[in-house]
Formats: sequence, structure tokens, C-alpha cells
Amino acid sequence: MPPLPAGQPIDLLIDARWIIPVEPFRTLLENHAVAIHNGRILGLLPSDQAHVTYQARRRVSLNEHVLIPGLINLHSHAAMSLLRGYADDQPLMRWLQEHIWPAEGRLVCADFVRDGTLLAGAEMLRGGITCFNDMYFFPEAAAQSIQRLGMRAVLGLITLEFPSAYASDASDYLSKGLATRDRLANTDRIGFTLAPHAPYSVEDKTFERIVTLAAQLDLSVHIHIHETAQEIEESMRLHGMRPLERLHRLGLLGPHLIGVHAVHLNGRDLALLADHGCSIVHCPTSNMKLASGIAPITAAMEQGIRVGLGTDGSASNNRCDLFWEMRHGALLGKVATDNAAAFDAHTMLRMATLEGATALGLENDIGSLRPGKCADLCAVRLDDWILQPCFDPASHLLYAAGREQVSHVWVQGDEKVTDGQLNDTDINELLDISALWQNNALMQRGNGGSGIPPQSNLP
Amino acid sequence: MPPLPAGQPIDLLIDARWIIPVEPFRTLLENHAVAIHNGRILGLLPSDQAHVTYQARRRVSLNEHVLIPGLINLHSHAAMSLLRGYADDQPLMRWLQEHIWPAEGRLVCADFVRDGTLLAGAEMLRGGITCFNDMYFFPEAAAQSIQRLGMRAVLGLITLEFPSAYASDASDYLSKGLATRDRLANTDRIGFTLAPHAPYSVEDKTFERIVTLAAQLDLSVHIHIHETAQEIEESMRLHGMRPLERLHRLGLLGPHLIGVHAVHLNGRDLALLADHGCSIVHCPTSNMKLASGIAPITAAMEQGIRVGLGTDGSASNNRCDLFWEMRHGALLGKVATDNAAAFDAHTMLRMATLEGATALGLENDIGSLRPGKCADLCAVRLDDWILQPCFDPASHLLYAAGREQVSHVWVQGDEKVTDGQLNDTDINELLDISALWQNNALMQRGNGGSGIPPQSNLP
Repeated sequence: MPPLPAGQPIDLLIDARWIIPVEPFRTLLENHAVAIHNGRILGLLPSDQAHVTYQARRRVSLNEHVLIPGLINLHSHAAMSLLRGYADDQPLMRWLQEHIWPAEGRLVCADFVRDGTLLAGAEMLRGGITCFNDMYFFPEAAAQSIQRLGMRAVLGLITLEFPSAYASDASDYLSKGLATRDRLANTDRIGFTLAPHAPYSVEDKTFERIVTLAAQLDLSVHIHIHETAQEIEESMRLHGMRPLERLHRLGLLGPHLIGVHAVHLNGRDLALLADHGCSIVHCPTSNMKLASGIAPITAAMEQGIRVGLGTDGSASNNRCDLFWEMRHGALLGKVATDNAAAFDAHTMLRMATLEGATALGLENDIGSLRPGKCADLCAVRLDDWILQPCFDPASHLLYAAGREQVSHVWVQGDEKVTDGQLNDTDINELLDISALWQNNALMQRGNGGSGIPPQSNLP
Repeated sequence: MPPLPAGQPIDLLIDARWIIPVEPFRTLLENHAVAIHNGRILGLLPSDQAHVTYQARRRVSLNEHVLIPGLINLHSHAAMSLLRGYADDQPLMRWLQEHIWPAEGRLVCADFVRDGTLLAGAEMLRGGITCFNDMYFFPEAAAQSIQRLGMRAVLGLITLEFPSAYASDASDYLSKGLATRDRLANTDRIGFTLAPHAPYSVEDKTFERIVTLAAQLDLSVHIHIHETAQEIEESMRLHGMRPLERLHRLGLLGPHLIGVHAVHLNGRDLALLADHGCSIVHCPTSNMKLASGIAPITAAMEQGIRVGLGTDGSASNNRCDLFWEMRHGALLGKVATDNAAAFDAHTMLRMATLEGATALGLENDIGSLRPGKCADLCAVRLDDWILQPCFDPASHLLYAAGREQVSHVWVQGDEKVTDGQLNDTDINELLDISALWQNNALMQRGNGGSGIPPQSNLP
């Protein structure tokens, strides 16, 4: 980025009581300012210096706030917001086979995805998430809502063998996905991954094609791996090897691989992921709520595997809320490793920002507050009486505050949330959307029939 | 309660979209009303019938809310709100020995307890908690704040062998506690327990005295038990038996015993608790954050042990928020028992209400919405767009909503929270209190010296 000509006013100067830039790690700046121009960060410097250095067209004072990078949700099925809490407290297989798959089979279409992604995107923005890595049907419909919201997303070109309302077979999923990518290739703030759903729902020959496409098109691969013990047993029976071993032999493993859940990992699995520079996505709320298991995150991190945080879909969480994921990940990690000092606040915040950005190959643009990066920012207000006193703004983010304290959100310098309210979004439309689809879901509940056969194991 | 003379207007009629009365279990009423007079529930009936049956001086319409019993926090150290987040992400022994004990030693006095209990009590009320079971120094100072807030509390007459700013030895703790109880004997909404801090901080002869006092004065006993593996090893070394066995031999176990944490329980421990009708308090957030371990709640419940929920103190949580405890308890319980159907929403809500009431011997007055009980109520608003859609108001309470959606709270028919705002509480006073004590804590941090010797293992 060329330096700003002397005397020219910049777009935006934000003063904050505290800033956690994530890079350098464990840094807490006090009374600093972020200078922003053309959607990018020009500099971080003490507020008193900033006021001498810069003239700004707009200034925002966050006197009781902590400013952090916009959060990055590394795994979502955004449109499933319309099935929020559709079937809670159910055993996993009954949840999937009797509730979620039939509901998806009856409801999912381009409108469902457009509306559900709008609702989830609004929820994420309001909660400080500026970028999400999605996997769902009809990605082009999702893109329309993401563009309306002006947020950042990476859309998985979902691929599986089984028919749905979206596509008929793996080849059809891929060609529809690639066509979507072609049409949206130069769309600002939107990127793509190849998204073979899971080892158990995708066949070898499809994986082989995905390996070729990933190399040709320089795309990352977003895939569920080792979420349940059952899928590993099934792979042993069908393929004579664990799913990760199978992906390895098929050539899927590499720095472009984003493996979601990664709950059941043995030593060989960890070594495969580490040796190939793969990233994994920790989804603590979903893994706890569905009783999938406790992912060995400490072991993964010790081996150098990159770990981001994901919310999963709203039918298994039921919030797209990375404050929850940071907190639940910290609490679960501490008790699971018998170490109260593990999974500390700065580590969790880095998972929810820079690690996600790096997994997506976007670390030069987002994930930390470094000059030159995009101005994707989240401000959290800490002066509410119910949060007092505050001794450490970093750990306060996890253990006392929540998304309800998010006051301002910027994506590439655009102010998307002001004083806790979404800008440019009609709340009544969101309410209408959810009422419409809730009604559809309730009307059709119990009518039987599913567009997605049970074998597909979706989501 | 005598029936109301015909034609006389009642004090309050609340219409609610949904009511979960907790008794009968798993009941969800729609478009019902609660009739309230003289602080007690006269009846629950369909709204249309209620409007024919009752004339009311005040009517409240909760058209998009779920009404539940006021939540009961079965274990708190309320005044520790002033040390919220004082030392996060620390290993347990360093947290205690280098941070919490020294801070308590320097700060704790009657004013600290009065101010901290006011802050925590306000936080709890705002979050739908109408009753808490406390254990801390200077209970008389705590009582002053509880009376100001008009909430319900059971104060532990804390007893340990080590000196503090409050008392010099076990005998002094007991005599001060009993004097407090005498002075406040007939105080509305305030009750007492004997509160020997823990097996490791109280000697046999003190326990013997407590057994006698509990019988003479008909008081329950509130005590930490088996929070860490270390305290069990220490007991084996010093006493040749596990702490619960020791309490059993000393005659402590019985329906009046409220054992807090109960993380490390073997089969004999569980049998002792079950055979004597003891209650335990599950504190999932504290147990996770301090890496104490995962309490065997399923096993305890299967044996018929009553289980309530507690927040613990704000230095180890860092919120007095039973919505967190219900959610964290459900999520942890599911993953720990490999059963997504376990710890369902109704079970967690009963833990946070009726089980707590019964443990305290208050089940005839609070804990469920049954005619004749006190009108201790919490209304949660579910129409925020960010929570939509809502398929099941019960599980929505746990998995989507939070205390920020609490809109109204009543204690014995008195409206304490209206539209999310505390009535009769000066927020500026709360802000001043926390600023004052935060300043005191920071000024004295690192000055060394502690009024509570490390051996006391407090809290």
C-alpha cells in the first residue's frame, strides 16, 4: 500500500481504550488508535500521536471498549439458522435421521439458502463475526445474501454422491459449484473452497477429481473429518483404513485442507495432519451438544496443527456465536486437559481470528490488526455495570462479556454495526423470513419423505 | 392460603405466551396466566379463563415470553464479584495461593462484603436469579445488601479453623455466625445454614459441634466436598479415609447436607450421599475453568441424589449467571456421558429451580409455579430477531437465549426487573462500588501479606 500523501485526510480514525491486535501475540494496547483508509489499516499508534499524525473524515471514540480483529467462523452451515433448535436434546442418529435430514429434504431450495444465510449472516455480523467459511447447498443463493450484508465469506462448493434439491450426483454438484465460482469469480469479499462433504459421503473417484481441481484452481478443501467414532468404524469396514489415511492415500492432505471437527484422532491421524500442514476446525459447542466427543486440541497444537474455531450449523449449537465457541473451547479444554492455564484467552482469541484467516489463506488480508490488512474490526463494550470490575480485558472477553456487548463492527472499513445495531439491514425482513420458514417447517413436519436419503449423513 | 373473597381484586395477573411451571415436570403451558396475591401464586390457568375469574390491580402481558420460576443459585460467594476476573487462566494452586487468598487477605472486611454482595445480588436479579445460597465472611453485611435488593438468600455461617479479618478461630466464626442469625432470625426472605468451609479446613471437634448445632437449630449444612483430587489424597494421608467417609463418621451426612462441587466421587462416596439423602451442587463453569474435573452427575442422579446448580464465586466463573450453568452443565454432561439426549433442557431447568429449593428445604415456598408458593418468577423474552426461529421455548432457554433476554423478575410478587432494567437500584452506585474496590485491589496487588494463610485453602 503506498503511503498516504501528506495532508490528505484519511477515511477513519478509531480511538480505543484497549486494542488486542492478535499480532504480536498476547499484546494489549491501551489508549491507541487505528488509522484506516480505503478499507485497509494504515497504522496502530498511541491515540495522542494519531491525532497529530492524521486528519480523518470520520472519528470514532471507543472509550470503554476493547477493539479486536473481526472474528472468523471457520465452519458454518449458515442457512441452517432456519432450523435453529429444530430438534434439541436428541441422540445423534435420531436427530439426523428423524429430524434434520427429513426437514432439509422438504425445505432446502435456493430461497431457503438465501433467506437462511441472510439471517445467519446478520446474526454473525451483530456478534462480531466478519468472515465465515460456509458449506451448504445452493452456494450462489448464499452469495446473494452475503453481498447484501457486505460481509466476507468463503463458500464451499459442496459435493456428495447423493441427490438433493440442489444436485443429482457428485458430478452435478461439482459442475454447479464450479459454474457458481465462475460467475462470482471477481466478487469482492467472496471466495470459494471445494467442499467434499465427508469421507463417508464421497467416493474415491470424486475425491480424485477434487484433488485435481484443487491443484488446477488453487482452491482449499473444506471437509468434515472424524466427527464420530462410528464413521471411523465404518471406514475400517468398507475401506480397511481410517478416513484420514484414506484421504492421505487419495492425495487430499496438504496445507489447503481444512478438516472440520477432528474429534477422534489417534497418533497416526495427528501425525498425518501435522506432516501435511493441514488445518482443523474445533467446534466445541456442536461437539458437546451432539456428544460427538472431545477433540484433542492440545495434542494437535503441540504437533503444530493449525486450529480455528467454528460454530457449525444452528441446528446443533444453536447460535452462530464465536464468543460462545471461545468460551466453551476454553472451558472444555481446561477440564479435559486437567490444566486451568491451558486454552487461555489470548490463545482462544487467536484461534477465532488469525488461525482461521491462515487456514483460509487470507492471513495477508485479515485475522489481525496489522498495517496493510483489511479493516475488519469488532469492538466490545466493557463498561456495562454487570461486567464490573474488569481486571483483564482479554479474559473478560471470554469469561464475562458476550456477543451482546459487541458495539461496532467494520468489514473492510465499512461500518456494519453501530452501538449494537445492524446498519443497512431491515430487522422486520429477518423476522418475516424466520416466521415464514418456521411455518413451512412446522406445516411439513411429520409429513415424511426426504430429498436426502439417510445414507448421506448430512450435515 | 385462604381463598380470595369473591369480587376482591387480586394484586397481579401475568399473561404469558409460554409458562414452564417445572411442576408437573416437562410441562409447557401456552397462553396461560399466573394469578398472584399477597406475594403468592393463587392459580395458573388459561388466559381467557383468568380474565373471567380475576380482577387484578396490575396486569402484565408477556406476549413473546416464557415465564419460569425464579432461578436458585445453590452455591455462591457473592461478595467475590469484586474480584471478577482478578486472575484468569492460572493453574489452580497459583490462582489460589498467589492471587485470590492474598487479595482476600488484604481486602475482605464488612464493607467489601456489603458492596460485593450488592453488586452480585443485582447481577443475579437482573439475570433471573431470585434466591442464592451463599458462603462468605461477614454474613451480616451480606444480609444488609440482600435486604436492600429485596431478594431471597440463605446465608452460610462460615466456619473454619484459620483466622481472617472476620473471625479468629472456629469458635469465633461460630459465635459470630450464630449471633448474626439471632439478630436476623425473623428477617423476611433470609435464611441460614451452618457452613463449615470444607473437610480440609475444619477439624473434627468443630464438625462435632456443627452436628449438634444443626440438630438443635434445625439448620442445613453447606460445605465444599471433593472438589479436587488433591484434597482427597490429603485426607487419606491425614485421616486414613476419604473426606466423605470422615464426614459420615462424624455424623454430618443427612438430608440437611448440601455438598458443593462433588467432582471426585467413587462408588462408596455416591452410596454415602444417596443413602443419607444428601444434596449436591453442580458448578460446571467453575469446575471447568479451574480444571477441577467433571462431576459424575448422571451417576449421582441415577442413585437418587438431588443435584442443584451453582455459580461459585466470580473469581472462578466469572459470572453469577445460571443460564450459563444450565447451558454449560448440559453441554458438558452430554459430551461426558456420550449421550446427546442426556441433561435435556427441562432437566437442567429443574436443577436450577426445584432441586435447589428442595435442597434448601424451601420446596413449599419456591422452585416451581404451583398455587400456594411464593411468586418468585423470571420472564425471558424470545422475540429478538437474533433468536429466531424458536421451535421449543424450553430448549431455546438453554441453547439460544441468555440472561440478556431476561425481561421481568418478581420476588414474592415484587417486581424487581422490568423490561430488562433493575428497579429500585442505582446503577451509578454499583459502578462506583466496583471502581472503588477495583482500585483498592490494584493498589494493593503485589504488596504481599495475606490475612488468610495458604493452608486455609479458601475459597
